Amino acid sequence: MSKISLSKISTRAPKEFDKAETKEKTAAILEELDDLQNLLYAENRHSILIVIQGMDASGKDGVIRNVMGSMNPQGVMVKSFKAPTSEELSHDFLWRIHNHTPAKGMIQVFNRSHYEDILITRVHRWIDDERTKKRVEAINAFERLLEEHNETHILKFYLHISREEQTQRLEERMHNPAKMWKYNEQDFEEAKLWDNYQSAYEDCFEKCNEPEWTIVPSDQNWYKEYVIAKALRDMLKGLKMQFPGLKKE
Amino acid sequence: MSKISLSKISTRAPKEFDKAETKEKTAAILEELDDLQNLLYAENRHSILIVIQGMDASGKDGVIRNVMGSMNPQGVMVKSFKAPTSEELSHDFLWRIHNHTPAKGMIQVFNRSHYEDILITRVHRWIDDERTKKRVEAINAFERLLEEHNETHILKFYLHISREEQTQRLEERMHNPAKMWKYNEQDFEEAKLWDNYQSAYEDCFEKCNEPEWTIVPSDQNWYKEYVIAKALRDMLKGLKMQFPGLKKE
Repeated sequence: MSKISLSKISTRAPKEFDKAETKEKTAAILEELDDLQNLLYAENRHSILIVIQGMDASGKDGVIRNVMGSMNPQGVMVKSFKAPTSEELSHDFLWRIHNHTPAKGMIQVFNRSHYEDILITRVHRWIDDERTKKRVEAINAFERLLEEHNETHILKFYLHISREEQTQRLEERMHNPAKMWKYNEQDFEEAKLWDNYQSAYEDCFEKCNEPEWTIVPSDQNWYKEYVIAKALRDMLKGLKMQFPGLKKE
Repeated sequence: MSKISLSKISTRAPKEFDKAETKEKTAAILEELDDLQNLLYAENRHSILIVIQGMDASGKDGVIRNVMGSMNPQGVMVKSFKAPTSEELSHDFLWRIHNHTPAKGMIQVFNRSHYEDILITRVHRWIDDERTKKRVEAINAFERLLEEHNETHILKFYLHISREEQTQRLEERMHNPAKMWKYNEQDFEEAKLWDNYQSAYEDCFEKCNEPEWTIVPSDQNWYKEYVIAKALRDMLKGLKMQFPGLKKE
């Protein structure tokens, strides 16, 4: 991926997409996904890693509930990465990540990920450019390890929302009783660093582009869910998986 | 390290080394090591990874007992890697290894290691040259990750014994009641593959040479222990560690 400019990419569904129609399509895809995940588990050959990144309130939790939640939880694991513990900090930054990479047959979802180690850390200048460069190299080698040595297919999604949409959603958290638990004063401070985050993300798409990132227009949840469900379905279908035959002695 | 030929390297101590004298020197180094390890733990900045490889009966366990055992066990962890479990096999080959890399302040000893994944696997042709090449690249990137992102200093020791010495030691296991528990019929089968193992090791020294391997003449345990204790002592001394001052609010 060459340098992309997030401000030039729409955060909304293309005009030709109708909400009701798209929701129906998504529902059909989710049924397919359930079957494909079962086949992935049965074949026990490939593994899937889904990385979900995005600004605060970009809808990461919603994707996990509505898309990933449609599959058998026995084969789907979700790990949310928060600020590292002191034990985690006493190891290299990929140590805690590696521990959660998917076994064969499994789908692992990362709610935030090792990418935070070149995003929040950079925006706050906790690490300098030289350190960032070394982390980028380590991330690329790490993803190659998973792909080449465990048949891990990595899908990376950036949930792309507009600044206005973010402001609205953060404010809703202050007023909607069902969302107050997500309210965090700090989020408003982070939101002020919008431009710095966007440019750190752009840099990350350019430098860690193999496998490629998918930029998901996410102001409308129905479109975001469609794009992600479809990308996962297409990838799983492309694996040409088969149920294994009867194992005999 | 350029291509080295193990058959040209002596498995015995150089003539100028006297056994009794060397043992005294080793004892003095072990006392230094105890202090240096305490400082490493207190400073909580560097971490040390010691990889011990060698043919069957080359004396890996003895090094761990006699050299590593001289330090405070709270700061020294030992992990023996055996044949991978089915859970481990369902991940990339470095997954189980990464889980045991040292935290800051710690010394981690690997009794066998990720190098088996390009040694035994190669000798038995469980993996082909293309796969070996990819594993070599992954190992180099992995060791760089530890060095660059967690101040991990890696010491790699190959315990170099002669074929005659190995035969004698394996036979001793059949007759010495204190060693019978180590006897494994399979070891004699593996011993027949001596030349294949030596050449797989030579290749591994050439391709994974950063940090460099130390070839330790190991037919005489007293010399082997001296070389390893000294290498560890020299490395720790080179870190110029200091006790941290009083932490104040």
